[in-house]
Amino acid sequence: MGKFLTSRKDNYSQWFNELVIKADLAETSAVRGCMVIKPYGFSIWEKMQAALDTMFKNTGHVNAYFPLFIPKSFFSKEANHVEGFAKECAVVTHYRLKNGAEGKGIEVDPDAKLEEELIVRPTSETIIWNTYKNWIQSYRDLPILCNQWANVVRWEMRTRLFLRTAEFLWQEGHTAHATKQEALEETEQMINVYADFAENFMAMPVIKGNKTANERFAGALETYTIEALMQDGKALQSGTSHFLGQNFAKAFDVQFTNKEGKLDHVWATSWGVSTRLMGALIMSHSDDNGLVLPPKLAPYQVVIVPIYKGDEQFAKVKEAGEKIKKQLIDAGISVKFDDRDTQKPGWKFAEYELKGVPVRIAIGERDINNNVVEVARRDTLEKKSYSQDNIAESIKDLLDDIQNNIYNKALKYREDNTYHADNWNEFVDIIENKGGFVYAHWDGTTETELAIKEKTKATIRCIPFGNPKEEGKCILTGKPSTQRVLFAKAY
Amino acid sequence: MGKFLTSRKDNYSQWFNELVIKADLAETSAVRGCMVIKPYGFSIWEKMQAALDTMFKNTGHVNAYFPLFIPKSFFSKEANHVEGFAKECAVVTHYRLKNGAEGKGIEVDPDAKLEEELIVRPTSETIIWNTYKNWIQSYRDLPILCNQWANVVRWEMRTRLFLRTAEFLWQEGHTAHATKQEALEETEQMINVYADFAENFMAMPVIKGNKTANERFAGALETYTIEALMQDGKALQSGTSHFLGQNFAKAFDVQFTNKEGKLDHVWATSWGVSTRLMGALIMSHSDDNGLVLPPKLAPYQVVIVPIYKGDEQFAKVKEAGEKIKKQLIDAGISVKFDDRDTQKPGWKFAEYELKGVPVRIAIGERDINNNVVEVARRDTLEKKSYSQDNIAESIKDLLDDIQNNIYNKALKYREDNTYHADNWNEFVDIIENKGGFVYAHWDGTTETELAIKEKTKATIRCIPFGNPKEEGKCILTGKPSTQRVLFAKAY
Repeated sequence: MGKFLTSRKDNYSQWFNELVIKADLAETSAVRGCMVIKPYGFSIWEKMQAALDTMFKNTGHVNAYFPLFIPKSFFSKEANHVEGFAKECAVVTHYRLKNGAEGKGIEVDPDAKLEEELIVRPTSETIIWNTYKNWIQSYRDLPILCNQWANVVRWEMRTRLFLRTAEFLWQEGHTAHATKQEALEETEQMINVYADFAENFMAMPVIKGNKTANERFAGALETYTIEALMQDGKALQSGTSHFLGQNFAKAFDVQFTNKEGKLDHVWATSWGVSTRLMGALIMSHSDDNGLVLPPKLAPYQVVIVPIYKGDEQFAKVKEAGEKIKKQLIDAGISVKFDDRDTQKPGWKFAEYELKGVPVRIAIGERDINNNVVEVARRDTLEKKSYSQDNIAESIKDLLDDIQNNIYNKALKYREDNTYHADNWNEFVDIIENKGGFVYAHWDGTTETELAIKEKTKATIRCIPFGNPKEEGKCILTGKPSTQRVLFAKAY
Repeated sequence: MGKFLTSRKDNYSQWFNELVIKADLAETSAVRGCMVIKPYGFSIWEKMQAALDTMFKNTGHVNAYFPLFIPKSFFSKEANHVEGFAKECAVVTHYRLKNGAEGKGIEVDPDAKLEEELIVRPTSETIIWNTYKNWIQSYRDLPILCNQWANVVRWEMRTRLFLRTAEFLWQEGHTAHATKQEALEETEQMINVYADFAENFMAMPVIKGNKTANERFAGALETYTIEALMQDGKALQSGTSHFLGQNFAKAFDVQFTNKEGKLDHVWATSWGVSTRLMGALIMSHSDDNGLVLPPKLAPYQVVIVPIYKGDEQFAKVKEAGEKIKKQLIDAGISVKFDDRDTQKPGWKFAEYELKGVPVRIAIGERDINNNVVEVARRDTLEKKSYSQDNIAESIKDLLDDIQNNIYNKALKYREDNTYHADNWNEFVDIIENKGGFVYAHWDGTTETELAIKEKTKATIRCIPFGNPKEEGKCILTGKPSTQRVLFAKAY
């Protein structure tokens, strides 16, 4: 497989798949639907984790760890939850293998059947609320503000790297509160944390809003979401925060004595983002040359490539390159100095373009003599000569500029691809021929929502926060509507 | 359950179990053998992870992520590995549940049986080497230096929190090399990293050495280990690094073109430490009052407790306490200021003793007037008055002193409990009546090793690196021996 990618225009889906593989982000494994996250991809995920983890801790949360397995019966305890989650999942039925009868291979030992099957967690509300039961007696034990970084498994039939895999990595926050108000505030706080992360680290503009009843998390009373628009005009749900009411507390009998001395059920939230964000990041900014990474999440922000002929020149440019590297590192910039002699500069240029390194610095003998370096920025592919004086400061400014520029570019794309449809034909035309976000009136029923999905594959992504009230008629049924909601085809 | 612990002398095992629970480190879950790691315990594990991860990266390693599941057939490919690992494990046989026949609960859908069962990874050599096969063609692709932070499952029949659980958290390094020499050097480098971490972060002295053939990792040609001595005289294997030779490369057909242009199988290592280190940490230093944590791994190094009567005094000590907190934080010390009015100082003192906070600062009105604070160190339980001038520097010195002191105390304990046995009766007497490490002659055969284990429960912990040669006779068989090896009963 060469370095060159299918273009987005020719086949967006293939472009994505090729990019994930060729940029060394992830690959499929021998296990159906499970991916291998390769070191370069994983280092981006680590940066995401570090930023999010700090944001969680700054908002008072702590990390903990709960079991991978959930007893089957736990899923039956919350009626809606079981419908949503317990169906397509990995089921552990046995706990031992034995040598095969023919002396060949190994087989499952039928004597080692579990009394109750265990489900590999698709999400952890049930096992966690079963645990919280023992942690909570009084309002003094509240709130509990736990987060867990974990792997989860949902047996998806059609999988795609990062976007939909049987096993994926995520964080799941699970909080317990004494009042409804406090739980609602937590739900909102966390969707704001996600939006802040998406916009300020991923450089990905998002729309925050409420999910409709139909699109809510199984067991939630409210689901808040952040929705981003990918370059093919499809939406990607990038993070959700759920107000669970007292549903799980009731299912697992978690009561507490409130300040007035009365028993009450505990109020709950849960919220999560996953390695799906890697897919969102890739599809938000990358181009036909490869990845475009925001400086705040790039494994290294700058690569320095020496240009030389012969050992004497190499010694000179190496010295100059190392000096620049040190200045950048001292300024808190992450740098790779690629002085391998096994590859030519042109090959390296293409490689780092493919891998989305935000800034490339090339330095040759003539540059040294002129006290300059050649700087190429990945987002615009522009090249420019920079003075070596104050190079760290110049590069710091450039990285800030790139971070802002790719955000603005994505925002402009979204604005250019956001429409208002006032009737069915307009709506269908936009969804089918243009893609993007479409604001349209809807009569508020699940029935209509499902009919629209059936006819167009478009779904209601959310009812945006602070959505303006507006009298109108439902695009499908013509029934009265008080506001437009946000439609799109989605991943 | 009150705060007070069973004493170590009365029942060491019960002391440990109570301490893990009462200090909020971990608890059992609804799933047999799986633990919940509680926030306080998890924050210690996070500090371990952070320190180790930095050490791995400083030695050139990168993180990646491989699937949770391993196809059953993979285990049969490496003959020794299957014997060691594929037996007691969680087996996924189905991928779907359905509503129960009676409309009650859910049951496993018999139509959703997997063609090949999946094993929840007990360790990842097989799935990783199956992946490396596609990553390695030439010596230019080597070395591969990957680490993974992950959960693993081994279906242990008798479990204990942190020490032996069905699911546990760990890291597993898996490296691939062009030469035997390089793989051996990596194996040794990583056991040195573990020893460095154990001694300098955990304040836990360890003995590095080779495992005997019988105690080696399933599939390894050499296993290096670090062995620590717990306060009950039992050894705890705390980390291992394995030289795997070409075994896994052969099992998964991973060949590369070497510098000479010839095909050869790749050389491998793997190495890991787990949440078992939490057990080692607890048992190395803690006492009958609770945890004793080394400052380098304590979730917070200092707790400040205000002593006051009435609002006016509270305002004064709060101001003074916050000022000290700021000075400490500015000096890089982690601090909790516990100004809750729901608990009395005496309760807080006992609580932080139980939780092992290295330094407690109490401050009342009289202390303010005298420009002092009362400082209690957890390791010795000594109290002393400290001037508020240069408080950050004094506390920094104190934390260093505590870190060193608990290391030295553990080292002295080990030295006081290390014996030389010259004949069978001496050996049995020490193992049965004293415990500790015993250096004794052994004839070098697995047969004798197993016979000694059978008779005394003592095992060969390792053959220490740099072990002095010494002529002698095997304590059991009287056969000639060229060196003493290290015996102990072990966790």
